[in-house]
Amino acid sequence: MEILIVNDDGWGTPGIRLLAKEMTRFGRVTVIAPDSPRSGFGACITATKPIYMQEVESDMADVRVFVTTGTPVDCVKLAVEVVFKGQKPDLLVSGINHGNNCSVNVLYSGTMGACFAGCEHGIPSIGFSIDDHSMEVDLQYLQPWISQITQHLLDEGIPPLVCYNVNAPVGEIAGLRWARSCRGRWTKEMAPHTDEEGNTYYMLGGEFVNDEPEAEDTDWWMLHHGFISIQPVSIDVTHYASL
Amino acid sequence: MEILIVNDDGWGTPGIRLLAKEMTRFGRVTVIAPDSPRSGFGACITATKPIYMQEVESDMADVRVFVTTGTPVDCVKLAVEVVFKGQKPDLLVSGINHGNNCSVNVLYSGTMGACFAGCEHGIPSIGFSIDDHSMEVDLQYLQPWISQITQHLLDEGIPPLVCYNVNAPVGEIAGLRWARSCRGRWTKEMAPHTDEEGNTYYMLGGEFVNDEPEAEDTDWWMLHHGFISIQPVSIDVTHYASL
Repeated sequence: MEILIVNDDGWGTPGIRLLAKEMTRFGRVTVIAPDSPRSGFGACITATKPIYMQEVESDMADVRVFVTTGTPVDCVKLAVEVVFKGQKPDLLVSGINHGNNCSVNVLYSGTMGACFAGCEHGIPSIGFSIDDHSMEVDLQYLQPWISQITQHLLDEGIPPLVCYNVNAPVGEIAGLRWARSCRGRWTKEMAPHTDEEGNTYYMLGGEFVNDEPEAEDTDWWMLHHGFISIQPVSIDVTHYASL
Repeated sequence: MEILIVNDDGWGTPGIRLLAKEMTRFGRVTVIAPDSPRSGFGACITATKPIYMQEVESDMADVRVFVTTGTPVDCVKLAVEVVFKGQKPDLLVSGINHGNNCSVNVLYSGTMGACFAGCEHGIPSIGFSIDDHSMEVDLQYLQPWISQITQHLLDEGIPPLVCYNVNAPVGEIAGLRWARSCRGRWTKEMAPHTDEEGNTYYMLGGEFVNDEPEAEDTDWWMLHHGFISIQPVSIDVTHYASL
């Protein structure tokens, strides 16, 4: 099996390295990642600027590594057209993102943006995220879960236009559950600051408000109760009930 | 009614100016737009850099204009928190985008990314796009349709977690129809070039392949048969059939 690994935190972060290593169990691994963090890039594409890509030396056995100046979605497009030369990979695994992608975060996530692009091309695509932003967190506890989830989704067969958004808590895992997005929104996001010249600027931050904290079938609830959540995500975003 | 106008092509393009003018029929208009084109930015947020915003002189009666260094989604977040000071606007209208947002384009569109963000905050949100990239195209023919569609969607009542993706052909309009996304994908997207130092780089372009060209209920079909399509879009991307 040919496996493409992508992320939005850039090559060299612990998350993508663990993922690449773990995926060598499944087949031949090719990493194509941005040259620096692209957190929050969603499904952003580089529409008007040149994109560079370079193969770099890999310190991992059986893992090829390419670094690009593009977004996570650009990485997938370069993979399909340039690196795999039109032969699409058999599996795309994105992450492990440092920060959860529950609820509306799935829309803003570069990790999941890469999965949307893979899914567009009919590649089975799975995004992994953990509920922690630290690059120092020990991810070893996730290793067996990643293989198990990947194998399970491949065995089950991934429907067309569907990819997966997997979110894991940090620490002991209570189990694995299917989930829907919880309804919620970010507040207090734009913090004002003053630069050296006295001009106001804003830095994105904020607090997430979950509108349904008691709903046990949501990704947010599961993450806060020790479960790994698996959200099946449709890249056809048509709201069919409205038609 | 307080109306927020956003786009991804930047303030000053014909599309957003026509939209702003037309929306003054509905209420007080505030434009918050990026300072330069952000085509293909999807739901990208500026997660790690300062964002500046400045009110600029408006040459349109009853229209306030703010220009930001952020993405279309950042513009919406700045609107909600800074300009409207937590009092969310009654309506968000995004566009008119120069280029259609049918099929998978809805995921990569900054115009629609802004609508996703508005929808997250419970603001009725409508994105308008035309099937033409030229800034010189005469948009006057669209003017009556924009008001009619906006009034119709407001009268009908917009369900929670739903926003609208409106795509119009250029020229004579055969009518107005509800639509779903057609299934398709981009091919031949990464064109190789060589820079002055002999290094290879890639520019995004490509051809869209529609996998169901005969399906008359799709946005693509309608656009190519003279109809304006209205796609209801769910920002809850959970694929419920898989749960």
